[in-house]
Parts: sequence; structure tokens; C-alpha cells
Amino acid sequence: MSPDTTFEDQLRLVIESVAPTDPAAEVAAWERLDSLTKPPRSLGRLETIAARLGRIQRTDHPTVESKAILLMAGDHGIVAEGVSPYPQDVTWQMVANFSAGGAAINQIARSVGASVEVYDVGVAHDLSEMDGIRHANVAHSTANMALGPAMSREEAAQAVLVGVEAAREAAERGVTLIGTGEMGIGNSSAATALAAAYTGASVDSVVGRGTGLDDAGLAHKAQVIREALDVNDTASLDALGVLAAVGGLEIAALAGVVIGAAEESVAVVSDGFISGAATLAAVILCPLAKEYVFPSHLSAEPGHRLVLEALEMEPVFDFDMRLGEGTGAALAMSVIDAACAVIGGMATFAEAGVAEAGE
Amino acid sequence: MSPDTTFEDQLRLVIESVAPTDPAAEVAAWERLDSLTKPPRSLGRLETIAARLGRIQRTDHPTVESKAILLMAGDHGIVAEGVSPYPQDVTWQMVANFSAGGAAINQIARSVGASVEVYDVGVAHDLSEMDGIRHANVAHSTANMALGPAMSREEAAQAVLVGVEAAREAAERGVTLIGTGEMGIGNSSAATALAAAYTGASVDSVVGRGTGLDDAGLAHKAQVIREALDVNDTASLDALGVLAAVGGLEIAALAGVVIGAAEESVAVVSDGFISGAATLAAVILCPLAKEYVFPSHLSAEPGHRLVLEALEMEPVFDFDMRLGEGTGAALAMSVIDAACAVIGGMATFAEAGVAEAGE
Repeated sequence: MSPDTTFEDQLRLVIESVAPTDPAAEVAAWERLDSLTKPPRSLGRLETIAARLGRIQRTDHPTVESKAILLMAGDHGIVAEGVSPYPQDVTWQMVANFSAGGAAINQIARSVGASVEVYDVGVAHDLSEMDGIRHANVAHSTANMALGPAMSREEAAQAVLVGVEAAREAAERGVTLIGTGEMGIGNSSAATALAAAYTGASVDSVVGRGTGLDDAGLAHKAQVIREALDVNDTASLDALGVLAAVGGLEIAALAGVVIGAAEESVAVVSDGFISGAATLAAVILCPLAKEYVFPSHLSAEPGHRLVLEALEMEPVFDFDMRLGEGTGAALAMSVIDAACAVIGGMATFAEAGVAEAGE
Repeated sequence: MSPDTTFEDQLRLVIESVAPTDPAAEVAAWERLDSLTKPPRSLGRLETIAARLGRIQRTDHPTVESKAILLMAGDHGIVAEGVSPYPQDVTWQMVANFSAGGAAINQIARSVGASVEVYDVGVAHDLSEMDGIRHANVAHSTANMALGPAMSREEAAQAVLVGVEAAREAAERGVTLIGTGEMGIGNSSAATALAAAYTGASVDSVVGRGTGLDDAGLAHKAQVIREALDVNDTASLDALGVLAAVGGLEIAALAGVVIGAAEESVAVVSDGFISGAATLAAVILCPLAKEYVFPSHLSAEPGHRLVLEALEMEPVFDFDMRLGEGTGAALAMSVIDAACAVIGGMATFAEAGVAEAGE
């Protein structure tokens, strides 16, 4: 690659290298599922998941050997507008907490047998000396999107490539199921702006309380997001332009995780609202990537339903969760594990000597 | 106990020994949950589960050390009326399949780290020589409930006590989370009859396709169940009388598992429609037992929603599953594991040095 290749050019090459999944493998997976000792289709969603994973892995015996949550962290200039009840320092403090194993995602990932890889993509605090995290800082926070673009196109593309590279590295070390996770005080504002810009929905129908705003805080947040969409004239921008104008560094990186997973033919589980906005950006940038994505939970953030509808995805469960970090994606991984155990380990009617219906 | 004590007398003593759970422990669990590094209540249902488990285990640090599915198998005389598309031999053939590890529950239980204990409570086939299962056969199938009672009261009470003993043995070997599972061709007819009798709902609003009936088969099944309710005059019977008249040996044993788990202060996860009917019987026999029960999935069998409403329980997830065997209960166990990991392993704001909202 020539030294003056732009990040955007590099990203275009990645997107072009994504291949479709294999419908014949999905058919073969269904044939196997229907031969197993249970009434046909009686495991419902578990069977659908097994068959889709077969399509992604191009086999009728899909497996999950190793699972990882790729957790992208970044800060948001929009917090200057008072859109979050938590101070910006919580972003780096939580990165330290992830690194020490004390956060919810550490515990839930451990519970389901997944590792957690934390990337500093855009944290405002200097974390270059912090152990136990991946150092990929593109900028120390985005700019305030209510005043202008959060990032340049090149910064946004660079951040997407951080995620692509994270997915590639995970695939290289044998990870066969990737989950998305994020941390960034203010990032529900960016996700709301992205969801509104990409779907055309009104800010009021997308915006939510994030980590815990009251009614006045919610109204103010909606107003600030509307200003950001206006100032940046997002209606005139392409997918990468929108991501740069009103997205976030960690959100761009998560879009890259989705695209990178697709490039590697690795299934990727999308977490809640913030991850959903990143997945939507990824799928608009790279439509084939959608075939590699499993949804997980439905977040309590109201915008998540709209994002999932835009993605044409049904959430797997609804636990009224709104934490992010990849917590919902990690929980869904245990369901995908069970789906693999079923298709991989069950006996067929013939093997077990069990009579079929009507015999 | 005197040699002429009846099984019903023994069961009464068990029921009287069940103690309530501890609301103070639940309050303490919520206090701990609210001190952890996440916005308060942002893990939704996971936190509710952790707090309820704290209440059951009487601690603010609930844990799941060891998990077991107690799978009760039994046959049903009602199959003579043609209510199932599968032959009765499938019950014992599936018990053999469980014993060999080839069934869905074996795979899903392994995937979530639970053991599976299979009990012959009422299989029609002689399984006395089969290895790898527990031998507790009360009768080789129930009688045809369309012609008279499926069981005598004493048989029903004896079968309930099989389940009580199974729960006690599990608790003795260190199991801290029990799941209910069942196998029995024809048992969705018995569960439908029980649900209709206990709730007063019409058979048509409860009955479903079981393992896969067509429309004509469904109408016939409903008619047969209505006959069973009429012939046995279930409206005139008490809870044990209903269980004996239109229940099943494995269903009675599962009711015993729920009561026995409560007696041992061990949480019990109820699986789908058949297990739900057994749980409803248990809770009518022993109202305090309800405090120890976690629901799992919402079965695709239409009667399950009605049973859960009667139990005032919200299912944890809906995967359109209708297999039984304990498959839904096993999946829910991984959610309960995650809830324990959260409350047991997360750092508090103070421990992690993370700022709280408004700081």
C-alpha cells in the first residue's frame, strides 16, 4: 500500500473483501437439526441460531471454540453540554476497572467463558502507561458535535480500522465468536444522533435517559442532539460522513469490529443501543456484514428497538438492561454455545434408536 | 414414622416443614447491587434475579456452586386415545438416550455446567436393568384418565415424595440450583388437564399441539381432555385429588422436586409447560414453595402463559421452544450464574475509585 493511501481508502478495501455467507451450509445445518432426537423445530430460536451460525461458518457442524468481547472506549466532546449525569473521568476510571476485572462485563464474560479485550480508541485521559489494555488511541476525545463535526472523516476511518484490526487479531488467535462492548460517558448521545441520522427518525423517538437523566436532563439532551444534527447538516452526508460528524471514536471502532469480523467470517454478537448504532453504521457502510451479526438483548434505551428494526433483527432476550460494556452480548453468547452443543452433540433418531412421529 | 403412615401423611409433614424466604436478605442484596460500579439498576432482570436468590439463600452474596436438572420420566394411559403423534415406546427410548448423553438436555446442560439426573417414576417399560438412571418407579404408566383417575391419591403422593427425595439428595450432594425436566409421551395432555382444572380455564384456551399434532389431532386431544375432566369430576377434588385424577407420575414427582427444593432452601428453575403445571400443583399444595421458584422460558405451548399467569411469574425469555426435558430451565441457569457473578464479583464504586453520578 502506498504511504499516501488514506484511511478511507484502506477501509474501502476491507469492505470490498467481505464475502457473503453460505446459504447451502444453512440448508445442511437444518437437515442435521431435523434428524436429531427431538420433535422437528421444537428448540425454536436455538435451532435458528445454530443454522445461521452454520451459514456463517460454512458447515453443518458450527462450533464456538473461543469467545471474546472486544470493548472499545472513547470520550465525547458533547459532554461539555451537560448530557450525562456522570463526569467524563468515569470513562478512564471504568477502563481501569475493566483492566482490574471489577466491572460487570468482566464478571459476566467470565461466567460465560469469554475473554474481554479493552481498547483505548479515544479516551480523553492519557492511558499510555496503563497495563492490561490495548493502546490504539486515535484522539483524546471527539470534538463537541453540537458545534461542528465530532471527528474528521480520516479520524473516523482510522477508528473503524482499529476495530477491523481488533477483529482480525481475535480471529488470528482462534476466537470464533466476537461480542461488541463499549465505554464512553456521553456515548448514548452520539448513538442517538447516529440512529436518527441513519434512519430518519426524530430525535425525540430515539433519545433515552442513558445512565440516568431526569426529565429535564432528557429534554436538554434531545435539544443538544438536534443542534448537532443541524450544525453538521447530517442529511447531506454519506455513511462515513455521518459517523464522523455525530459518532464517536469507540462507536466507529465497533463498526470496524463488525466489518472485520465479517471479513474474517467470524460471527459477531451486537450488544445494546450504542453497539446497535455502531452495527447500523457498519451495515450501511458494508451491507454484507449484516449476515455475520447476531443481535443479543433489547436494551431499555428506547432507541435500540428502532435500531434493531432498521437492521431487521429480532433481539434474543429483553432483560431491561441498559449498561452496555458488552454485557448483553456476553449473555447471548451462552445461548449460542447451547445452540452449538445441540447441533454438534445430539444423537440422531437413527443413532439413538428412538422412534419418529407416526412410527 | 409408624409403618402404617400413608404417603399423603408423609407429604403433609414435608409441606409443613417448608419455611419462608428472607426479605431482609433481599434488601441487603439490593444494597450491595446499588453499590457496584454501574448505574443503579442498569442490569435490569439480572439484578432482580440476584436479589431474589439472595432472599432464598439468606445472604447478600448468593452463589451457585453446583447445578442439576432433575428429570422425571413417566408414561400416560391417555395415549390409548391417540393424543400424541409419537408411540409410547419413545418415553423409554428417550430415557435410554438421556442415559447415553444423546438428547438435547444432555447437551444444553453440559453447555451450562449442569448435571442431569434421570428418574424412572412411571415409565411403562421395565427399566430396572438400565444403568445411569435412578430407579423410583411407582407404576408402569398411569391409567387412562379419560376412563377414570390416572392414579390413586396414594400413588400420586408417593410420586410427589420421589421428587422430594430427589431434591433432598441433590441438596445433600451440594447442588445449589435445581432445574425441573420431564419426559413422557402424552404428558402435555395431562398438563393441559391439570392447568384447566387448577385455573378454571377452558380446555380450548390451554390445549396445544404438544410434539406436533395437526388441527384434527388438536381438536381430538381437547375432546379427550374434556372427557377426562368430566369423568373425574375434577371440580369437586382438592389439589392432590386433581393431581391424582388427571396428572402424571413424572408431573407429580416434579411437584415434589419443587416442594423438596423449598424444604431445602434451594432455588428451583421451572422449565416449560409440563414443568409449569407441576409447579402450579406444588404451589397449590404448598404456597410457600413459590418463593423458591424461578421461571425460565415461555414455551410455545399456549397453556404455559396461562400457567405462568396463575403463578404470577414473568418468563425470563421466549425462544419459541416446546421440547421440555428441562432445556429451558438449563438455559435460564446460565442467566442465574451471570447474576451471581455480578453480585459476587463486581467492584463497588469505592473499591474501584470510580466517580458516582453527580460527583
